[in-house]
Amino acid sequence: MLLTVNHGPIRELRLNRPPANALSFELIHALREEIEKAPKDSARAIVLSGSPGRFSGGLDVPLLLGYDHAAMSQLWREFYALLKTMSCSSIPIAAAITGHAPAGGTVLASFCDWRVVADGTFIIGLNEVQVGLPLPPVIFAGLRRLLGPRDAERLAVGGLLISPAEALRVGLIDEIAPPDQVIDRAMQWCQSMLALPHDAMTITRAEARADLKSYFDQNLDPEIEKVTASWWAPETQATLHAVAAKLGKKTAGLSS
Amino acid sequence: MLLTVNHGPIRELRLNRPPANALSFELIHALREEIEKAPKDSARAIVLSGSPGRFSGGLDVPLLLGYDHAAMSQLWREFYALLKTMSCSSIPIAAAITGHAPAGGTVLASFCDWRVVADGTFIIGLNEVQVGLPLPPVIFAGLRRLLGPRDAERLAVGGLLISPAEALRVGLIDEIAPPDQVIDRAMQWCQSMLALPHDAMTITRAEARADLKSYFDQNLDPEIEKVTASWWAPETQATLHAVAAKLGKKTAGLSS
Amino acid sequence: MLLTVNHGPIRELRLNRPPANALSFELIHALREEIEKAPKDSARAIVLSGSPGRFSGGLDVPLLLGYDHAAMSQLWREFYALLKTMSCSSIPIAAAITGHAPAGGTVLASFCDWRVVADGTFIIGLNEVQVGLPLPPVIFAGLRRLLGPRDAERLAVGGLLISPAEALRVGLIDEIAPPDQVIDRAMQWCQSMLALPHDAMTITRAEARADLKSYFDQNLDPEIEKVTASWWAPETQATLHAVAAKLGKKTAGLSS
Repeated sequence: MLLTVNHGPIRELRLNRPPANALSFELIHALREEIEKAPKDSARAIVLSGSPGRFSGGLDVPLLLGYDHAAMSQLWREFYALLKTMSCSSIPIAAAITGHAPAGGTVLASFCDWRVVADGTFIIGLNEVQVGLPLPPVIFAGLRRLLGPRDAERLAVGGLLISPAEALRVGLIDEIAPPDQVIDRAMQWCQSMLALPHDAMTITRAEARADLKSYFDQNLDPEIEKVTASWWAPETQATLHAVAAKLGKKTAGLSS
Repeated sequence: MLLTVNHGPIRELRLNRPPANALSFELIHALREEIEKAPKDSARAIVLSGSPGRFSGGLDVPLLLGYDHAAMSQLWREFYALLKTMSCSSIPIAAAITGHAPAGGTVLASFCDWRVVADGTFIIGLNEVQVGLPLPPVIFAGLRRLLGPRDAERLAVGGLLISPAEALRVGLIDEIAPPDQVIDRAMQWCQSMLALPHDAMTITRAEARADLKSYFDQNLDPEIEKVTASWWAPETQATLHAVAAKLGKKTAGLSS
Repeated sequence: MLLTVNHGPIRELRLNRPPANALSFELIHALREEIEKAPKDSARAIVLSGSPGRFSGGLDVPLLLGYDHAAMSQLWREFYALLKTMSCSSIPIAAAITGHAPAGGTVLASFCDWRVVADGTFIIGLNEVQVGLPLPPVIFAGLRRLLGPRDAERLAVGGLLISPAEALRVGLIDEIAPPDQVIDRAMQWCQSMLALPHDAMTITRAEARADLKSYFDQNLDPEIEKVTASWWAPETQATLHAVAAKLGKKTAGLSS
């Protein structure tokens, strides 16, 4: 469900959980482990990519609707741990957003160092509210860091999905590239990082990302508990079941 | 001085204090009461609008120059209370900026959730410095939240009044609409909020606006006292009297 | 090395250390003294300018490579003191960026109130990382204040030098002017400040810059020691010597 491709010192982690690279506990866990493992294997940068046309569809709603409270709690703990790992990574991570990246797909990208999106009619954004899920505060904090308070409020509260062009305009992404060049561009960005004096880059990068990292200095247990609890709220369950039913009809077995 | 128009679940509060919808103690007080009352009356969103061509001219300077210290102190307390009410409102508020919105007009809009301005040669911005009034810190905080520190500093210190197009560029507003559609657009934005899963929207909105709300967690008495005192500074009084004299000549009885 | 030109109430401080207005301890010290002296001499605004085509090339690397530890420590203490003086200045400072402004040139400009750059193929930006120097945290804080966290991270970590047009787009500068008018434009901006009611402008300006000023409320000794120590790191020394050798060949005696 997660392919590892080495390109010299750059390690590509390719989401590979068909059909939509939707996030299960196992994929979130694998991603966290691989990001932590990369620098230990002497990788000096990471490209996080997806399938052509699909970066990640976010949480695997149909699958997760079958989780019990313990499993959901474990999933959110792991997701927070993944975001912490990304925020604290000692090596740069570029998101090669190869296609659709709603909800969790955008979350993963927004905790990377840099983002390039495939040109096309792809959707990006945090549509959690649209599917009945209050946006977890850590995710809002990551969004606000990129967009500023005004656009972050507008997009998050409205649960808006936007185009690559609009995402570039508001600062949710850094670049748009032709679909067949999006991974190459992420790779080139990593190479530009590796071409810099290593220590100067690394120390400055730590300073520039200290605000993101500091979010994880607080005790996040109460936040994670609240986020987990919100999954079982009647409105959320009703909306998610409707979403899952629609997905089921459209793709006949999305979460297989 | 404040009309209430119900459009199903959306309540429009229309400033109606001719000729310029300038803010007196009574209008500020009425506005605060109506915003607090709306959700109790089961309104689910608010549109704050003004008259065609005039949203609000800000504080009614000629009138306020007749206030004594106690009255000015009461006015500023009420204005801070209004801004707190807007920041903490449990339902979304859209500003339908129907025309000119200098100073206090812009302040009201900037504490709403979303802003649309009528297309035309209307002025918007915080020109307090131009009329001799140091910008109250709470107002600067609201502006910086929308524009970021650089543009907020530039506009606030210079007391600049800008066009709708420039306001859109810097993020002071969210949209421009033809004058006869500006209230409709604000209504449509409210409807888009009401179409969302209620709890998910409400919880995410509270998170997105927590930074604005948190300003009012501190003891604001010293700030309000300082703002009140600044009204009586010789420079401020001289400048405001000059402004009032000019207004008096131009509109013959603006503050009637 | 620093010319003082009075234009009525506006004092121009013109960097004049050929060929590149590179920063030595003496120039940094002189600049701080002159900025502190200006309001005592009844100047009401300052224009900080450079030579045609060259605003400032930043730290005088070839010269500084000859400094011992005590001299470098003294230089950084003075540089931090200069930035504090600029942040706390009681009168507005406009940067007339007359030409190239890499590294320290951009730092000086970013702690001013307002920035205009000469139109042309000039470079601006914080390329410290490119020359092996971790960006000092205070400098990153000043950059993030102007650009927001995303662009500040992107430019600082990459050590990117950008064009005036790109600098305007991201908010690193406020205006572009023809080279022969850049000082005039800075002067006009100062005049627009002086035309405002003095106390209202001054109080609002202090509020708008309080975030910048507050950086200096903390004990900065540990930060300054770390920055000084980074100068002697092997990677930094190797990269700086390579830069100096290249500069030496190109300009035959840059730091003379």
